[in-house]
Amino acid sequence: MLEEYKRLSPSEFFYRNRELAGFSNPSRSLYTSIRELFENSMDACELNGINPEIVIFLRRIKKGEKGEIYKLYIQDNGSGIPKKHILNALGSVLYSSKYVIRQSRGTFGLGGTMALLYGQITTGKPVKVISSTGNSQIHQYVFKIDIRSNNPIIYGYKTIRNNRRWRGTIIEFYLEGNYSIASRYIINYLKLTAAITPYADILFVDPNGNLFYFPRTTKKMPKPPKIIKPHPHGIDLEFLKHLISRYPRHTTLKEFLMKAFHRVGTSTADRFLAYAKMRGNLRLGELTDEMIEKIYHALRSYDKFIAPNSEVLSPITEELFMEGIIKEFRPEYVDVVTRPPSSYSGHPFIIEAGLAYGGEIPGQGGDILLFRYANKIPLLFDEGSDVSYKVLERLKQGSYKIQSDKPIAIFVHIASTKVPFKSVGKEAVADVPEVEKEIELALKHLFRRFLKYRKRIIRKREMAKRIKIYEKYIHLINRFSSELAEKEPADLSKLLEKVKLRYGLKKEVEETI
Amino acid sequence: MLEEYKRLSPSEFFYRNRELAGFSNPSRSLYTSIRELFENSMDACELNGINPEIVIFLRRIKKGEKGEIYKLYIQDNGSGIPKKHILNALGSVLYSSKYVIRQSRGTFGLGGTMALLYGQITTGKPVKVISSTGNSQIHQYVFKIDIRSNNPIIYGYKTIRNNRRWRGTIIEFYLEGNYSIASRYIINYLKLTAAITPYADILFVDPNGNLFYFPRTTKKMPKPPKIIKPHPHGIDLEFLKHLISRYPRHTTLKEFLMKAFHRVGTSTADRFLAYAKMRGNLRLGELTDEMIEKIYHALRSYDKFIAPNSEVLSPITEELFMEGIIKEFRPEYVDVVTRPPSSYSGHPFIIEAGLAYGGEIPGQGGDILLFRYANKIPLLFDEGSDVSYKVLERLKQGSYKIQSDKPIAIFVHIASTKVPFKSVGKEAVADVPEVEKEIELALKHLFRRFLKYRKRIIRKREMAKRIKIYEKYIHLINRFSSELAEKEPADLSKLLEKVKLRYGLKKEVEETI
Repeated sequence: MLEEYKRLSPSEFFYRNRELAGFSNPSRSLYTSIRELFENSMDACELNGINPEIVIFLRRIKKGEKGEIYKLYIQDNGSGIPKKHILNALGSVLYSSKYVIRQSRGTFGLGGTMALLYGQITTGKPVKVISSTGNSQIHQYVFKIDIRSNNPIIYGYKTIRNNRRWRGTIIEFYLEGNYSIASRYIINYLKLTAAITPYADILFVDPNGNLFYFPRTTKKMPKPPKIIKPHPHGIDLEFLKHLISRYPRHTTLKEFLMKAFHRVGTSTADRFLAYAKMRGNLRLGELTDEMIEKIYHALRSYDKFIAPNSEVLSPITEELFMEGIIKEFRPEYVDVVTRPPSSYSGHPFIIEAGLAYGGEIPGQGGDILLFRYANKIPLLFDEGSDVSYKVLERLKQGSYKIQSDKPIAIFVHIASTKVPFKSVGKEAVADVPEVEKEIELALKHLFRRFLKYRKRIIRKREMAKRIKIYEKYIHLINRFSSELAEKEPADLSKLLEKVKLRYGLKKEVEETI
Repeated sequence: MLEEYKRLSPSEFFYRNRELAGFSNPSRSLYTSIRELFENSMDACELNGINPEIVIFLRRIKKGEKGEIYKLYIQDNGSGIPKKHILNALGSVLYSSKYVIRQSRGTFGLGGTMALLYGQITTGKPVKVISSTGNSQIHQYVFKIDIRSNNPIIYGYKTIRNNRRWRGTIIEFYLEGNYSIASRYIINYLKLTAAITPYADILFVDPNGNLFYFPRTTKKMPKPPKIIKPHPHGIDLEFLKHLISRYPRHTTLKEFLMKAFHRVGTSTADRFLAYAKMRGNLRLGELTDEMIEKIYHALRSYDKFIAPNSEVLSPITEELFMEGIIKEFRPEYVDVVTRPPSSYSGHPFIIEAGLAYGGEIPGQGGDILLFRYANKIPLLFDEGSDVSYKVLERLKQGSYKIQSDKPIAIFVHIASTKVPFKSVGKEAVADVPEVEKEIELALKHLFRRFLKYRKRIIRKREMAKRIKIYEKYIHLINRFSSELAEKEPADLSKLLEKVKLRYGLKKEVEETI
């Protein structure tokens, strides 16, 4: 009857349950490792307005049993990691720069370290990291992670003179994997990333010596996202208490509201205080637990707060989204829509969606492929439990029975300071009602416009046929009626030209029949 | 360009990302809270061979904004928590008795504390816990959790003389919720638990004063699961090194193998050592990193290790499974199968499955309901991404087109020392190939037998009709042929009786027509 109680460090917890973070088998783990480090690299560039240049080398070192051993090298030209944070940011779980309210690819501050930890678990080898923020020094660490204490163990350190003011981060480590299974996902992932980041230069050399290069086609970048203060609708009682404790006791309640929260100015604060029946000149030090609770309930129920500012988000933008899709799929038809900003529980979000048809979209007629993105990350797994899938299935079974002779690709992107992911592995977005509604509106819009386009195309083709027939017989009718009228036959060639031009069929008619 | 780096405590991480553990909105959080604490209570009983008696009271305290405030009281007669662990086990994240290799409902050592943390976040009130291991004292603590340090803060402590040697744990706390939405899930969850634990007594009084009582119908319990040593196939290099470090340096390699691993005896150790080309009398202190790596690869690739012993598992057993289904659904037909034990990556597991038809199974003809269980926990959410759903859909679309006039319920239970859950919220089981195969075999078996049963029923009904017609005309034929033969008509009543008896139709015939 004696139970054994024990405390786990966070690294030990995630080490034991690494499948929760996407490290479930050699192929999936290889994919997740590349993906997590790549996303960190992209963040290090995009969050700082730098055009990303990412280089990934994956080399096969030796044949393993359940998988093979690889050496992964990944280099970026991002902001670099300040010396004092390098070891902890990479050698300690739950130590990160992602713990602010901001749209970024990284969310949990976990994935990069988990990739390195996975490498260590499977190969026992230390990690090498080289980084510089562009100052006079480049730092190189060789380290392992002590799983039980959640701390890095240094195996080597040196500093290099940074004469050329290089800036960025390089990570090099060994890990077990199975590239023959993972390759499809890795390449797809990079391709789909390239499709929404035409401003990034991505190079991947795979273990078989194949080179996958996704060149930058524009220097233009979306504006970087901003770090924001919490919105009153997004907080809980615990967090409110924590916020209050961070301001001096003599701060007035009104000052506090204006300083601590996103989009609360003097007039919003006044109106809220009237609603909450609280005095604005009350000092924080005077607040009792009951009062704080009262404020908390009022904050949550007051429905006149200004919605979170989506200006702080960094959507792909219609221009770059379209450019990316054309670059990667060369479709016959492409349409992109950005929904107006919305929010759920105090978190701003924007839905962007695209529809492309024909061209290099894989598949055949009747296929509707779904490409999902969250904060610019392509999501490749667990499609069936994603909100976009749910919406698309509903529309397909409902009034939008799209029939097409060529495959269609649907793209859905959610940009948010907090994407409602269903798991630490970041593979599916939960069906939050506000998000679901916006996706539905975006897809309906795209479908309507696509159906119009298809109708126009089909009408054009039919008209072409009709005019061809008309052209065949009009001369007979012309002759017949001129004989009846005892007149010269009219010259119809100009009339026919005019009709063809009017329906924009000049080319079509010549081509099709 | 200055990134803000920060370290999170585990409690802070799970507090920020509580939706990962099932705390996504007031109704779901209420469901998850009850579920997590209930599962801890069930574990505290079952793991120690105690017939569970669980009492849950949920009282509505006041109307909230996005949800209401409830008081949750949950009491069990389990093993109780030793005094020195009470505060940490409940007031600190990642402190638990679940960190051993054993089949239990609790897996992550996280859910119970998360429920209390959620209550604190939403109501700001402390938790009261009362526990005794059945010795002379009962301990009562009132505490909160300091999220930032991941430590409990004591608000009150007292000890009570335990004259009646009461044993168990009582937890009482406040939380926000939405019972009108959650009720359906909570009641369903308890009903489905009762359906596989007829040896448990479960009482739930809901906020509307309704009483849900699931009485025990048998005292018989499955044998409790055992704590086991790791299987060689389930370990990684990191873990191997950790294991080695726990034994004295002078331990020989062979001794180590036999002591550290599950089901490695002297002959298995010898054969493995020959395979790995290692000397058994080598001391652990003499092992180099290269040697350890070599042993690790050999451990993973050696395929002659004895499969993990499923004796350590605690399946429901066919008898109790059937008893439970009958108790909760009173079906017309019920069939249960227990597959032989199997394993994946060194983790033993057993699949048990059931099929019930008609009776009180909700729904209508043609419906096939799926009830999923993992280590005796009913799984109510994310059905679409569960391996059982995948298998069932495949069978339905394949050769098992079950047509039935009444609803069918399929039950699938996986018992394992490590259920491959897809998320911390424990709602879906991943499609590990070994698990998938076992589920498929179990369901095929049940379907085949059900189809036979259906055929027998249908044949019976058809035979009944035929005999009725036969009965109608046989007398005419009898008279006619006796006239032809110029003989007395034969007495057919006995013959008819015989035919009816032979087809077991005596009752059927009388009833149906």
